[in-house]
This record gives sequence, C-alpha cells and structure tokens, in this order.
Amino acid sequence: MPESPAPATEPTEPASALRFRAARHADLARVVELIADDAVAAARTGTYGPAHEAAFDAIEASANDELVVAELDGEVVGVMQLTFVPGISRNGATRLLVEAVRVDTRLRSQGLGRALMEHAHARGRERGCTLAQLTSDKQRPDAHRFYRSLGYAQSHEGFKLPL
Amino acid sequence: MPESPAPATEPTEPASALRFRAARHADLARVVELIADDAVAAARTGTYGPAHEAAFDAIEASANDELVVAELDGEVVGVMQLTFVPGISRNGATRLLVEAVRVDTRLRSQGLGRALMEHAHARGRERGCTLAQLTSDKQRPDAHRFYRSLGYAQSHEGFKLPL
Repeated sequence: MPESPAPATEPTEPASALRFRAARHADLARVVELIADDAVAAARTGTYGPAHEAAFDAIEASANDELVVAELDGEVVGVMQLTFVPGISRNGATRLLVEAVRVDTRLRSQGLGRALMEHAHARGRERGCTLAQLTSDKQRPDAHRFYRSLGYAQSHEGFKLPL
Repeated sequence: MPESPAPATEPTEPASALRFRAARHADLARVVELIADDAVAAARTGTYGPAHEAAFDAIEASANDELVVAELDGEVVGVMQLTFVPGISRNGATRLLVEAVRVDTRLRSQGLGRALMEHAHARGRERGCTLAQLTSDKQRPDAHRFYRSLGYAQSHEGFKLPL
C-alpha cells in the first residue's frame, strides 16, 4: 500500500524574514551608523546630528527621493537611497539613481546586497525608470565586481567637485 | 591743455550676450537636437517626439529638477540638466547632479561649456548643494580633461543598467 501523502501544511514564516520599507525618523541614527561603517566613507559621513536630520526631512519632502532600509528579523541591516530623475536624453528616459548602498558588515556575502539592489530596480520600474545608474569610489574594487555581477556596465567615469 | 575726458557712456550690451534660463517648451526640439548631435549619444537620444515631451513635463513638475539652456544672441546654443539630490551620506550633503551637458558643436572651445558649468555650480550653491557630481562615458576623454580642468576629481567608476 502506498504511503499516505504528507499532510498539507500552511506556508510558515521563514526563520529569517527580510523586508524592505521606507526609512522612518526612528531609523536615522542606525542609518548613519551603517553609512559610516565603511573604510572609504567613515571620515566624511560625520556623527549623527542635525545635518542628517535636515537631510532626512528633505528626502521625506521630495516626491522623487526615497530612503529605503532592509530589515531582518526586525533589525535594520541595510540602507540605500533612490532618486527618480526625469530627463530628455536617452529618448526621455527616467533614471533610477542609487546612492549610499550599505549592508551590515556582519552580514556581507549572504545575498543581502543583491536583494537590496533587486528591490531598487523593482522600485525604479514601478516609477517608470528605464535605466539605473550609480557610481562607486575607485577604491572599492569589490563593489565594482558586485555591480558587474548584477549586469551593470562599467561604462562611465565618475567626477565629484566640492561646491 | 589736457584733452577733455571721454564723455561718460552708458554701459552697452556686449556684442555677444550669453545668458542662461530655464528651458521652455518651445525650446524642446532644439534641446533634443543639441543632445543628439554627439557621436556617443546620437543613436540613443531618438528623434524629437512624445517621450521627450513627457520628460519635459516631468522635469517641469519636479521641484528638484531644472533643464537649463544657454542662449547666445537669442539662439539656444547649449543645454544641461540639473538635479538637486538630498542625501544622508557625506554629513547630510545635498548633491548637484549634472546630466546631458551639450554645447553647439560650431561653438566648441570658446569657453561656453565652462560658463555653462559655472552656472550649474552657482545654481547648486543657491540650492544648498555642497557637492557636484556627474558621469561621463569612458569614450569621451576630451570631456574628462574638461571636467578635470574645472577641478573635478575623477574618483569614481560609473555604472549603468537598463531596467
């Protein structure tokens, strides 16, 4: 007699639930900590204070900017900022600009960065973007390999000028 | 007897008056023409049409985007797009993103591009930006030299991904 089939089960919540959501004011100190926890950016991020508060308010007030956090089991473990940029070139393409991508250093190489970027691209598509773009400091060869692995073309030189 | 001083004159309009202003809808076909008149961008700009119209409307509707034209003796001879991007990183820096910089090919090497970029930086400062950033296709070494000559650091790799 054949074994009886396994009983049907309800899908259960995975042990580690990763979700993405808009950053809240209460996340901001943690967001600054994530952004600063990086050899290249540490010196220039500053310690959490009024300048970050003002920036958060400006992002909240903008229809084209989003600060997104990744939450794992209720803890903020990643961040990125998205800007939707309308433009005439490339046949009127709206661009998704991705800045300040960070993943908790204790959780690197576990696919979190990839999930974060996939969420960025999905948000971009929802907003009608046909091109994603970002720059990465020349001191970050590992990041460059990561972006190439996502299909990005390393086609441009990136320039910065303090004003 | 000393010569009498030259009669006081009213300042006269210079022979070639360059000015910068927000693009108007009536400029759009010319703007697309300027953006497309370029070996790298020609194929991807498209011919003037509804996609550019929609992009123009989106720029007009955005509080953080400006399409700027340079006008010389009443003719549009240059264009650029400015985006003011609030952000948490770099101690809450607002960034000036410069895209789609073009100067009429007949008027190259006459300081027009420099004047255009100086106007971009002035607008950025007015909007509280502390950093200007842009990317330039790796196929444009002359443009890279130009941006370096303006003081830009060529510090980043630029990545693009179609969505």
